[in-house]
Amino acid sequence: MADHTTRRRSWWGWGTEADALSAAECTALGSLVPGAAATPLPVPDVSGHLLPKVRVEPPTALAPFMSAAPLDRASHTYGKAYRDVVRALEGDLTAAPDQVARPRTEQEVADALDWAADADVAVVPYGGGSSVVGGVEYRADRHRAVVSLDLSRLDRVLEIDRVSRAARIQAGALGPGLEDQLRPHGLTLRHFPQSFEFSTLGGWLATRAGGHYATLYTHIDDLVESLRVVTPAGVNASLRLPGSGAGPSPDRLFLGSEGALGVITEAWMRLQERPRHKASATVLFGDVHTAFGAVRAIAQSGLHPANCRLLDPGEAALAGVAHGGRSVLVLGVESAHVPVDGRLAELLALARDHGGSPAPTQPGAPDAAADTWRSAFLRMPYLRDALARMSVVTETFETACTWDRAPQLYEAVRGRLADVVREVTGAEGTVNCRFTHVYPDGPAPYFTVIAPGRRGAEVAMWDEIKSAAMEVLHDHGATVTHHHAVGRDHRPGYDRQRPEPFALALRAAKRALDPAGILNPGVLID
Amino acid sequence: MADHTTRRRSWWGWGTEADALSAAECTALGSLVPGAAATPLPVPDVSGHLLPKVRVEPPTALAPFMSAAPLDRASHTYGKAYRDVVRALEGDLTAAPDQVARPRTEQEVADALDWAADADVAVVPYGGGSSVVGGVEYRADRHRAVVSLDLSRLDRVLEIDRVSRAARIQAGALGPGLEDQLRPHGLTLRHFPQSFEFSTLGGWLATRAGGHYATLYTHIDDLVESLRVVTPAGVNASLRLPGSGAGPSPDRLFLGSEGALGVITEAWMRLQERPRHKASATVLFGDVHTAFGAVRAIAQSGLHPANCRLLDPGEAALAGVAHGGRSVLVLGVESAHVPVDGRLAELLALARDHGGSPAPTQPGAPDAAADTWRSAFLRMPYLRDALARMSVVTETFETACTWDRAPQLYEAVRGRLADVVREVTGAEGTVNCRFTHVYPDGPAPYFTVIAPGRRGAEVAMWDEIKSAAMEVLHDHGATVTHHHAVGRDHRPGYDRQRPEPFALALRAAKRALDPAGILNPGVLID
Repeated sequence: MADHTTRRRSWWGWGTEADALSAAECTALGSLVPGAAATPLPVPDVSGHLLPKVRVEPPTALAPFMSAAPLDRASHTYGKAYRDVVRALEGDLTAAPDQVARPRTEQEVADALDWAADADVAVVPYGGGSSVVGGVEYRADRHRAVVSLDLSRLDRVLEIDRVSRAARIQAGALGPGLEDQLRPHGLTLRHFPQSFEFSTLGGWLATRAGGHYATLYTHIDDLVESLRVVTPAGVNASLRLPGSGAGPSPDRLFLGSEGALGVITEAWMRLQERPRHKASATVLFGDVHTAFGAVRAIAQSGLHPANCRLLDPGEAALAGVAHGGRSVLVLGVESAHVPVDGRLAELLALARDHGGSPAPTQPGAPDAAADTWRSAFLRMPYLRDALARMSVVTETFETACTWDRAPQLYEAVRGRLADVVREVTGAEGTVNCRFTHVYPDGPAPYFTVIAPGRRGAEVAMWDEIKSAAMEVLHDHGATVTHHHAVGRDHRPGYDRQRPEPFALALRAAKRALDPAGILNPGVLID
Repeated sequence: MADHTTRRRSWWGWGTEADALSAAECTALGSLVPGAAATPLPVPDVSGHLLPKVRVEPPTALAPFMSAAPLDRASHTYGKAYRDVVRALEGDLTAAPDQVARPRTEQEVADALDWAADADVAVVPYGGGSSVVGGVEYRADRHRAVVSLDLSRLDRVLEIDRVSRAARIQAGALGPGLEDQLRPHGLTLRHFPQSFEFSTLGGWLATRAGGHYATLYTHIDDLVESLRVVTPAGVNASLRLPGSGAGPSPDRLFLGSEGALGVITEAWMRLQERPRHKASATVLFGDVHTAFGAVRAIAQSGLHPANCRLLDPGEAALAGVAHGGRSVLVLGVESAHVPVDGRLAELLALARDHGGSPAPTQPGAPDAAADTWRSAFLRMPYLRDALARMSVVTETFETACTWDRAPQLYEAVRGRLADVVREVTGAEGTVNCRFTHVYPDGPAPYFTVIAPGRRGAEVAMWDEIKSAAMEVLHDHGATVTHHHAVGRDHRPGYDRQRPEPFALALRAAKRALDPAGILNPGVLID
């Protein structure tokens, strides 16, 4: 990741241009999916003619940090959902923002909001742009113009408190840049979402991101000491505290607010020392429901493994760690302070007691499945984009539910989604599942759907699959999202899940903080 | 605690009448405090003449669960702050509610709110009445009358999900009753605030109560799967989930809302298995700041002790575990699953590395300091009441701050409060401190102030001490409360601490959910 600051970001797809699959690689990948297109969709040139006319010019004072360059506008039109990538490939940039603002100070953020409120310009806060739920795409039509507020220039670690192990970090810092600044101090935020390279602290906070670790500190929420949030009604600066019981938490109102209540500009974050002790192992299960029981026992054991990732047989195959059609549980333990071999042994004993068989490993060697899985994990979004170019429809959605409902949910999702894929695409798709996080009271299952689509109908097919997914989650009392956020794509499920009095309160809070209604219109509430 | 359901509650002081100190015991205790009164304040008889005229009668439909009996009204006038106890002893019941409602169903809660909104009657939700911050006392004068809404009849565990280890519990369940209902299932909520015997689940949720355990699950917040809250705008029922990232957490708006936004009627709560393995030990430190360093190392070690209670020399003496003027650290480890002796050894090694000396114990015997401390801890509020009868002013206040500020805060509080006590009472008081909870980024210090007062001036003296305490906490960036809540007594500190945009949002939420402004007027917001 050493070159993460220099490699050019893809304007249409995940990550960097250099890491995207070539046309030849797309074709080869597509050949693995029966029914895929024969040739990849070309990547269009971004030029003025694809973009709508610019409807607003910034005032002189703001002009130095605003841009209406075609590449800026195009790259800020969408997030990175499947439907975003396909529409970008199709050259559909009608939703492009008029301007991209890149404020260099918190004051410039406030100035931009002041101007936008007066000028009836919608403001869409933009971190790394990795939203997979339509979180950064303006879809309304009631504002005079739209500005994408890109926080990428606010990317510094401003202060480190070594004693309390905390740092004040600007919201626009990307994962690698943030960790680079902490590393010389022997500290780490230790929050590694799959989007780590291409998402920001502010984005994580605004969407309640989930990190890589399976237990204990899963969501970014628990790592927050305090926030600074610029709202049209003033700067919300909470007190930096390890814990408090003074009224409802101010921070928890802004965590998950997805830019609708204010723009997070910085946060004091809890840090950890870098782990010095690590151990991992793989356990196999002949039956996925037996595996559920073992994972539940582990989640309820108080042993808090750093990794506890269960892959069902299809998911294991997709990640390149197949074990003869068995389910694969990757366990990992880490500590900065004490050896962890004993804890891994306790975890393995629990897994064995619940029907698991440790996979054979070379004694002393790092566990191969964990490494293989991690590479595949980081590579996955690029493959998704390549499949998109081959008109293969892919959808990933994630949820959480209590253990009593998990087995039925798993079967219902697989059954229902397989049916829907068949109805929508006319082909047999695959529906796989892994658990990304596990809690004492339930897992967070993550589903992947892959099916050959029809060129030109990919987005419509995806929308039908997404809609069916939300329906089955709702039917089983599972959340519409565990860590991908609501954005605009999850609104139908979210609107049903959110208690109505809370919706009233949230709308009232929005009116109080953003009376002109300019902040990220359409996410969470109308 | 077997007789917790039958013993009669004290209407004026802590806990039960039977456990209060007799007049002779009060006198003996007072003799230990130079400058205390010679004889105890008598406990007044509650009779009609102390109580103001009843200003409202309930409609026929609500009459079956309402009472205007003098003892009901008197016992629901105040919480259990020092100033509450003194005023009750002085027979000052001018703030008594007109009616005490004890709804038997959620529908009756809703009916009471509907009637109150129409009739301009303020409603003060009441759990166990153990508030020490003026949380259940009506102090405004803009409503026609006041009803105390006592949830004590909604006290059942309604459902247990053994698989997910969770239970649906009514808000009016007191600690012991709740645990009694969980015990046959081998489960426990494992939330033990000092008020455990006399406070309810709903009260804990509404005030973000802190439990007995020092690390990991400190506040009740983290044990909540979902809430049901009756608001004047409808019932807020959140989805029961182990984790979610779907917008700002609905539950977190109501956690800590202190009855100002709605009445919590039930919750799905995460449970744990009863610990089978326990180990504890005591470590001594010659210097309190050395002890701070050791506790910080433990809090940052990831070892998560169940108990990690540091008592400074004065606090150790008060709790009956003095060790020659040294600071006392009580460490405890618990697990339902794995032996914990190894973990205790790791903790002791850390404490030793940081300047601590393990206190001598009999091999294999349970640690005496922990038991002694626990008895004193539960007895403390009764002693506080006895001291109140002897006109000794006592105040406890608790806070949290990051480690970088903790040493200065400790010295500043002790210095400033000693000065204030001298100014206010003319006597030398004691100011002690313990850490109730410790986080990786900071401790939660709990201070106890004891000084002889002057009969008739106790409340005024207490108010001055409280005000100085809030001032010094504010000056050091410490929270006005870690787990006692805001109520009315902490409003001055809370109003300064709370970010102004959040205040706007909270007021707007309140207007949306409680348009008539009847719910617990005066807590949190005006």
